[in-house]
Amino acid sequence: MAYTYEYPRPALTVDCVIFGLDESHQLKVLLIQRKNDPFAGRWALPGGFVDMDESLEAAALRELEEETGVRDVFIEQLFTFGAPERDPRGRVVSVAYYALVNLSEHPVEAASDARRVEWFPVQELPPLAFDHDKILQMATNRLRAKVRYQPIGFELLPEQFTLSQLQQLYETVLGVDELNKRNFRTRILKMGVLREVGKQENVAHRPAKLYSFDKEAYEQLFRERYDDLLRRGVDFEI
Amino acid sequence: MAYTYEYPRPALTVDCVIFGLDESHQLKVLLIQRKNDPFAGRWALPGGFVDMDESLEAAALRELEEETGVRDVFIEQLFTFGAPERDPRGRVVSVAYYALVNLSEHPVEAASDARRVEWFPVQELPPLAFDHDKILQMATNRLRAKVRYQPIGFELLPEQFTLSQLQQLYETVLGVDELNKRNFRTRILKMGVLREVGKQENVAHRPAKLYSFDKEAYEQLFRERYDDLLRRGVDFEI
Repeated sequence: MAYTYEYPRPALTVDCVIFGLDESHQLKVLLIQRKNDPFAGRWALPGGFVDMDESLEAAALRELEEETGVRDVFIEQLFTFGAPERDPRGRVVSVAYYALVNLSEHPVEAASDARRVEWFPVQELPPLAFDHDKILQMATNRLRAKVRYQPIGFELLPEQFTLSQLQQLYETVLGVDELNKRNFRTRILKMGVLREVGKQENVAHRPAKLYSFDKEAYEQLFRERYDDLLRRGVDFEI
Repeated sequence: MAYTYEYPRPALTVDCVIFGLDESHQLKVLLIQRKNDPFAGRWALPGGFVDMDESLEAAALRELEEETGVRDVFIEQLFTFGAPERDPRGRVVSVAYYALVNLSEHPVEAASDARRVEWFPVQELPPLAFDHDKILQMATNRLRAKVRYQPIGFELLPEQFTLSQLQQLYETVLGVDELNKRNFRTRILKMGVLREVGKQENVAHRPAKLYSFDKEAYEQLFRERYDDLLRRGVDFEI
């Protein structure tokens, strides 16, 4: 019966792809330098083994805080990586999570299995341990697909901002030079999460409208599942 | 160091949500009746424990064939379920996969841990074992979101078909009464996977155009990752 399959068991880990944004208009990712073998000294995603009594998400948040000091992050499950040869220690299956944060609000401090911790631009990455390059690539694709339906900017922008600032944020995350301005404005306003709060003052150019996020509408959108957003976002488009 | 976290380990399983379509225009799902405890006699998703030397996908396909006789299915990873209390046997984490098939081409035969195997309409399900109702719900949402960007119908429709037949297929999968006909046609043709091959003959009504899938273009689309499809599908829509 089933029990006969229970041993030996693969080891189960979690890994966190934490993307960060700041004023540099570069998309960055949080990496730790491993203290221990395998890959001692190599940069890697924060993560570690799942304890028996914690959920997968709790394990990811615990390892993230233990190794980097980063906490209070909204993470989402990305994918589970289980190729038999992905870890030299033996069979290790890893459930990957990802998040996007304002890195200036998340001071980092290396601890636990981490020798150092740093934010790296996704365009200038060091060689990574294990199959973490694959995990990071998938996370980048997922983030870019996702932000097309789920608003970003809350906690990433000042209280009041212009649509140009918001568009620049999207361009940074999407890694594109320039989104179509009219399409962007139409779509972002259609999300119904922006409140017009006034106009710029004391600016040389013609003052632009200022917006802030409608926290309630924004959080409502965030509480919805990705699939629901998708379905709503593309309704009647097959 | 890390090794201290390695034991005890959660058990790792895979579960398969296999959706099936036939002439009944009902979306169905493949369930097995469990032979063993826990939940002996209860209906459940096909699945089981992951062996040490097989990939997660290989484990899912192996368990699917062992328990139901279904093989040669294109499955995709759905989500990993790891709530500490989800399995009465102790800590069991399960990686779920899903697929959509033409059930008439997949005769089923109960074996292994399955007492019986049957296709159930997703609208008329028996009580399920474990948290399989949650897994099935997420799979249904994912399938419906996904088919909006990835063509379906190849292997689900006759060699030549009308756009009405294809639209009915989508309506069945999406669980909607009627998609907007013009929008549907515009979008599906935009995918570039249909070849016009003629007109209906010997029909009472005005003959409709017949189409068949351009296998190469279709498989190209299928080889692309979901995120790529998403990104391309919604380009410039934020």
